[in-house]
Amino acid sequence: MTTPAEQAILDAHYMARALELARKGHYTTHPNPRVGCVIVQGGQIVGEGWHERAGEPHAEVHALRAAGEFARGATAYVTLEPCSHHGRTPPCADALVNAGVARVVAAMQDPNPEVAGRGLQRLAQAGIATESGVLEGEARKLNQGFLKRMEHGLPFVRVKLAMSLDGRTAMESGESQWITGPAARSAVQRLRAQASVVLTGADTVLADNARLTVRADELGLDTEQTALAMSRPPLRVLVDGRLRVPLDAPFFKAGPALVATCVAVEEQYANGPECLIVPGYDGQVDLRQLLVELAARGVNEVLVEAGPRLAGAFAQLGLVDEFQIFIAGKFLGSSARPLLDWPLAQMKDAPELKIIEIRAVGDDWRVIAIPLPAASV
Amino acid sequence: MTTPAEQAILDAHYMARALELARKGHYTTHPNPRVGCVIVQGGQIVGEGWHERAGEPHAEVHALRAAGEFARGATAYVTLEPCSHHGRTPPCADALVNAGVARVVAAMQDPNPEVAGRGLQRLAQAGIATESGVLEGEARKLNQGFLKRMEHGLPFVRVKLAMSLDGRTAMESGESQWITGPAARSAVQRLRAQASVVLTGADTVLADNARLTVRADELGLDTEQTALAMSRPPLRVLVDGRLRVPLDAPFFKAGPALVATCVAVEEQYANGPECLIVPGYDGQVDLRQLLVELAARGVNEVLVEAGPRLAGAFAQLGLVDEFQIFIAGKFLGSSARPLLDWPLAQMKDAPELKIIEIRAVGDDWRVIAIPLPAASV
Repeated sequence: MTTPAEQAILDAHYMARALELARKGHYTTHPNPRVGCVIVQGGQIVGEGWHERAGEPHAEVHALRAAGEFARGATAYVTLEPCSHHGRTPPCADALVNAGVARVVAAMQDPNPEVAGRGLQRLAQAGIATESGVLEGEARKLNQGFLKRMEHGLPFVRVKLAMSLDGRTAMESGESQWITGPAARSAVQRLRAQASVVLTGADTVLADNARLTVRADELGLDTEQTALAMSRPPLRVLVDGRLRVPLDAPFFKAGPALVATCVAVEEQYANGPECLIVPGYDGQVDLRQLLVELAARGVNEVLVEAGPRLAGAFAQLGLVDEFQIFIAGKFLGSSARPLLDWPLAQMKDAPELKIIEIRAVGDDWRVIAIPLPAASV
Repeated sequence: MTTPAEQAILDAHYMARALELARKGHYTTHPNPRVGCVIVQGGQIVGEGWHERAGEPHAEVHALRAAGEFARGATAYVTLEPCSHHGRTPPCADALVNAGVARVVAAMQDPNPEVAGRGLQRLAQAGIATESGVLEGEARKLNQGFLKRMEHGLPFVRVKLAMSLDGRTAMESGESQWITGPAARSAVQRLRAQASVVLTGADTVLADNARLTVRADELGLDTEQTALAMSRPPLRVLVDGRLRVPLDAPFFKAGPALVATCVAVEEQYANGPECLIVPGYDGQVDLRQLLVELAARGVNEVLVEAGPRLAGAFAQLGLVDEFQIFIAGKFLGSSARPLLDWPLAQMKDAPELKIIEIRAVGDDWRVIAIPLPAASV
């Protein structure tokens, strides 16, 4: 007989495994959340599962199938509350009830308004013991984008920047290739692959011939993860208020893309990529409105890879959830281009950030920084 | 009977202790090197010593005194080759011979031309077994300044900078106080305390009323180390080519200082601080020449705490051995002042640095970066 304290240790142990499984869906579950499930019977894991992609079975269904008859009387560990609604697949809460599990432990409630506690409720009504909040912090971190969209109607916005040690992104002339080394570029490839959307601006596409694609050989992942990543490329979004980028730009030739613009419909590309008309002013797309539109399309995570102007605009509007800044061991000098176009007059206006991690990436370093609330609009 | 491999392990073990002792002289030995000594007899440490300050006994003498008769037939571990010359104290090599030690292990040869192998030679001639090169890398790191001066006739130059995450040091207006937090300021106090010279420019002294003193209560050291640090304050050097700083500046009121200037003698401060006339051009002190002069005065380590102009000049001339950059979790924006005044046109001219460490210091982070050879003049 285990004590409650011992049970809590075991619960955390099995949930950690469920989280590990959930992470296998890192590159593919959009617009769904990443979810893992472990079924435990008599101290043995009898079934494991993770959600791979929208429209396909949820983690619980995979795990129940693997467990078969051993699911009866077992405990199911799920990184997100089992769903209670009919989406593209039937409710997982029903599947757990039908399989006869005795107890369900969730890392967190599902903030999806179609679930929001009703999954656990349904289980409880069927006489199943339920619990929520085991390793919740890690579970939330796994689905920052999905949670942001469910809770705020906006995607999680990650801004990637590459700078020299003196905070510069390019020479005055615009010359900017290869500031950082191969390991940093590989890390950026993985950031792209995990995003729902990779977003850039006309300046970057025009000046650097940027394509912002995911390249299998640069991901630095094993064969299985590479195949998963390549099976669901992120949507590439170009912010181009005035439609300055010509249709023969490498960006458009590299695959499907969405153009966010303020230009009225009749002036749009004739046989070109899909355009999303967003309100704007002075030819500048209203970025908050664009994010709202993207969230409405199921976009969980946006990776912004843009120049100082567009990245600066996101920052100034308080729309950034996380900066990932790759720092190269170089000085580009005082005439080089700034990290963000964001003039500030007084120290009291300087936005504060919490640097949560600095780590070596090859010869470069990666800083992860989170804007503090005062910096938001 | 120990094997040679086992003896090497034991040698490294005792040398590590000698290095630990040497570090106690971190704040006080200038212009001498930091040295520690351990005397081992029959598997026991029978004497320990470290050099505290110039004119006082060397590490070996302290350790031999502590060992007394147990020194006979013992092994002495020293972090630097024992001296062979009569300086302010008699040669340590003689003291070791007289004490009858059987073996002397040095971490490294003394590059001082007055020693340079002659200490070990003298011991060998007296029939003492000698060895050099145990934990040499760590021993060199301990005395970077002394070694630079002995080997190149220049002090080790460390440039301290404090910047925002976007590489800015102050607002356009000059407003710059408190970019970093108390832990970073405390780290800077320790950098000052360990330096032979803290060097700044007229801009900094005029704009910020900087004093660049060491303050006991901000060092964050224990009582013993604080007392040591305060007993040997670094010399404060002001680079002021045109003597723009008035005598009533807080900098001068805060204690003795040396002014490096290009202004001819008759125009100097009448009853003011000592002036060092250095060649220059256009009212700018020749910084390399200044460093040569400082080295000739026994200066091992220079800490540059200056604005973007003077720090940038040191960097451009390839005179910097190490940058310590404190990064605050803030954006100061694109109109704020640059890290270094150093305009560069092309990426190929961008100096490369090796970032050797990034570590959290309170809420801020410290980057230690070493210019790579191509960046030197």
